Amino acid sequence: MPFASLDAFRAALAAAPGPDRAARAAAEARNSRLTKPPGALGRLEEIAVWWCGWRGVARGALERPQIVVFAADHGVARRGVSPFPAEVTAQMVGNFAAGGAAINQLSRLLGARLDVVDVGVGRPTADFTEGPAMDEARFLQALGAGWDAVDPDADLFIAGEMGIGATSAASAVAAALFGGGAEAWTGRGAGVDDAGLRAKTAVVAAGLAAHPEAAADPLEALRRLGGLEMAAMAGAVAAARARRTPVLLDGFICTAAAAALAHASPGALEHCRAGHRSGEAAHGRMLDALGLEAVLDLGMRLGEGSGAAVAALTVKAALACHGGMATFAEAGVSGG
Amino acid sequence: MPFASLDAFRAALAAAPGPDRAARAAAEARNSRLTKPPGALGRLEEIAVWWCGWRGVARGALERPQIVVFAADHGVARRGVSPFPAEVTAQMVGNFAAGGAAINQLSRLLGARLDVVDVGVGRPTADFTEGPAMDEARFLQALGAGWDAVDPDADLFIAGEMGIGATSAASAVAAALFGGGAEAWTGRGAGVDDAGLRAKTAVVAAGLAAHPEAAADPLEALRRLGGLEMAAMAGAVAAARARRTPVLLDGFICTAAAAALAHASPGALEHCRAGHRSGEAAHGRMLDALGLEAVLDLGMRLGEGSGAAVAALTVKAALACHGGMATFAEAGVSGG
Repeated sequence: MPFASLDAFRAALAAAPGPDRAARAAAEARNSRLTKPPGALGRLEEIAVWWCGWRGVARGALERPQIVVFAADHGVARRGVSPFPAEVTAQMVGNFAAGGAAINQLSRLLGARLDVVDVGVGRPTADFTEGPAMDEARFLQALGAGWDAVDPDADLFIAGEMGIGATSAASAVAAALFGGGAEAWTGRGAGVDDAGLRAKTAVVAAGLAAHPEAAADPLEALRRLGGLEMAAMAGAVAAARARRTPVLLDGFICTAAAAALAHASPGALEHCRAGHRSGEAAHGRMLDALGLEAVLDLGMRLGEGSGAAVAALTVKAALACHGGMATFAEAGVSGG
Repeated sequence: MPFASLDAFRAALAAAPGPDRAARAAAEARNSRLTKPPGALGRLEEIAVWWCGWRGVARGALERPQIVVFAADHGVARRGVSPFPAEVTAQMVGNFAAGGAAINQLSRLLGARLDVVDVGVGRPTADFTEGPAMDEARFLQALGAGWDAVDPDADLFIAGEMGIGATSAASAVAAALFGGGAEAWTGRGAGVDDAGLRAKTAVVAAGLAAHPEAAADPLEALRRLGGLEMAAMAGAVAAARARRTPVLLDGFICTAAAAALAHASPGALEHCRAGHRSGEAAHGRMLDALGLEAVLDLGMRLGEGSGAAVAALTVKAALACHGGMATFAEAGVSGG
């Protein structure tokens, strides 16, 4: 869906439906009858009921998860904010195509459809220290590309990303959305050293200083300071909501993109759960600010959707238990 | 393997081999060449290297995981320590056989062999407030049953349990091993209320008072205060070590049984990782005391091996990445 304007995207966000409350209640009722002490499956129980509510079913199994990796280059990469050169973005897209990246292995294990969508490889955003990363037309195009990438038949959606320089963009967006300054939101990304971290923080601070408008409007923050892959991730998470497709958020970059939606439209992430708490230090702070509790906390910080893909195995486990277990009555087990 | 004496079991523990250091080093070297920033897969990297070291391979996949649920009844159950009546042990064994329990769904999802071994259903241990839970012959028999239950071809082993009253036994064993008194180690188990928790704590305290010898000898703690399923779990974890089979520990009861091994023979759990941090409050304290860091923290407290079974999906993911990803050289990606 190409958006004619930012207002058209805002309208799509505002029109998003909620979960199916009857299905959710039926899933909760089923959960309470299964052969286990109440609450003994912990977080798995909440995850199963959440998924059923958005899918509109009283029980179900994860059969058609979709992972989309959005790839794009960043103007800010030339500022030396990553230990990797910018050409790695294109090289990694080649690695995805050849099946050699982490997300390829995880998609196969999960039984997920994996798409890689090039929204700007070799066509970087502008350096946000010098001007807006995207003009409005390019921003709308990326939002639309993300929206269109979501398979209407997916029963769980994960947005991943690849782009050298992306954590700098995410840090700048997070700082604009949540305040607190560049230092609070800038981390080591793909592994910068102490000097690299200082330089990266200065670049993020320069971006914030160049775009005071970003603090006032979440979508403007995403356009001026974010990346094309972040805009596409936001578009995809919004499209999933419009279709009531549950979403597992990945790490720092994905959550920063989603946070722009949450700030633009309260409740915009009700169909989302945080797949994991990333090793990128500021991610935990962002989850806390959004009221999201991560499923996993394994110190992962790779991107590509990898943390959410591992977490999706736990969603699969939650649904396998919820959908497959016998009730006390069926099994002839005495209740507590 | 039937053990003729506790000393024979102690000798088997002491003779346990370490990991294959060359395989471990090869797995580490491979990890460092994969197409990701160093450390970006977080805990998955350590898990893959740990598994490869014990399996004696430079890379591999999880193909033959085994879950064994040991079921037994507890004399102490008649003291009202659980919200469920004792007959639920046998009813749940029927539920396992019919495929209706949580562990059936999780085993199927994981592709694991699931065995249910009856080591004392309907033949409870003695009430530990009145005497030792097991005499030495019965204890040795249970250790041997656990030892024999481990499939020599398994590439990951998980011990689960079913037995009404088992958390009381595990609390008593933990208190004997770690000190600190009954209150520090007694929790709500399958869901006792406040009054039930006070009664349960008093029962555990009475057990500790009746068996001062338990504090001096970890295997005596297991025999006098533990359960048949706990003894079998300890035997199985020891057998896995003898065969260099990596183990994922489950929750409170499993970890208490394994802790007896660790106290009897330092390093006895080097082949183990903690699958999860249970919702049973004292489990985290036990993991900390053993120096084990859990893979998952989902508030699960069901037993049956369920927490470890969910965690095994993360092990599978770790090995899929480690074994399947391309190296920088293979993919033509510029290194960092």
